[in-house]
Amino acid sequence: MNGVPPNPARRSERSRQAILAAALDLCTEKGYARTTVEAIAARAGVSKKTIYRWWPSKGAILLEAINNAVVMTTPFPDTGDLAADLCTQMHAVVKLLTNPPLGPAYAGILTEIQYDDELCRAVQEEFINPRVEAAKIRLRRAREQGELPPDADLDLAVELFYGPLYYRHTLRRPPYTRERIVTLIAHVMRSLGAA
Amino acid sequence: MNGVPPNPARRSERSRQAILAAALDLCTEKGYARTTVEAIAARAGVSKKTIYRWWPSKGAILLEAINNAVVMTTPFPDTGDLAADLCTQMHAVVKLLTNPPLGPAYAGILTEIQYDDELCRAVQEEFINPRVEAAKIRLRRAREQGELPPDADLDLAVELFYGPLYYRHTLRRPPYTRERIVTLIAHVMRSLGAA
Repeated sequence: MNGVPPNPARRSERSRQAILAAALDLCTEKGYARTTVEAIAARAGVSKKTIYRWWPSKGAILLEAINNAVVMTTPFPDTGDLAADLCTQMHAVVKLLTNPPLGPAYAGILTEIQYDDELCRAVQEEFINPRVEAAKIRLRRAREQGELPPDADLDLAVELFYGPLYYRHTLRRPPYTRERIVTLIAHVMRSLGAA
Repeated sequence: MNGVPPNPARRSERSRQAILAAALDLCTEKGYARTTVEAIAARAGVSKKTIYRWWPSKGAILLEAINNAVVMTTPFPDTGDLAADLCTQMHAVVKLLTNPPLGPAYAGILTEIQYDDELCRAVQEEFINPRVEAAKIRLRRAREQGELPPDADLDLAVELFYGPLYYRHTLRRPPYTRERIVTLIAHVMRSLGAA
């Protein structure tokens, strides 16, 4: 007790970051299936009770870890050139999906949501829907700037851009190269009626 | 020993069909994760040894069951109208992916291949590659008949047609309706430079 009392908010944030990092590390080392909440707690130096106060399952922890990383590393840039911006973004997504620590963690989550309805809802609400919305904001701006025609179907556009990436990821086929991403984007732009 | 000896080939085929049916039934009733080779053997009235003589894992059994059903129920028709034929085929695929018994079984296999390299290879070689090849045969014919331009990128075409279906399936989003499939096909045709 010498002077400044500990700041509980800051201490919580430090624990939170330690838990997210521990979850990703364990998932990389042991694979998603063999990562347990117990091991995450031990590695992060917190109790299981602390973890369960904040998250219902290991899937939820890993979802938050992925979400943090994805929001930071794959923003939707706007340089005024939609094709170039999508290439930047989609290439970053492919790199994330393909490499540790996020690739195996996300693959694990995608398998878990086939059985875990609560996690599935969290993935939609906290991860996919906001990402789809961010993509559509960028596409809407392209529409306003005349890069896409006024009647371009933006919901379909998102699935045409990202569907093939998920197809390769789900089936464990070789990931899209930058060159193929450029070809994919050119095709989807044409499908939407871009000049 | 009264007269005609049993025909071992026919007996084997009957066992094989019983095993495939038992695997799909159990997967529908209990879910993929709780379906075991032991239970499949018991339900089909064969020994576990018989099963392991033919298949390395429950995933392999279910893959064969799915493959049989898919080849029968989702052929690539050729009426001379590519968009209409794709709609028929893709709508049948969505129905299979969405409903028991094949939907849950295939979802289970797609999760298992994230961890099981042997099953992953089998899925590519026995299921995906032949289906991609069948799709490309149909697309090549459309190219010859002038429905697609001579330089249409058929590998990309397959991923643009089926990627969005996998995206929805993997993320457990609502399946494509027939109307949206029509819109999807029209977009991909345009992306390939179809008139």
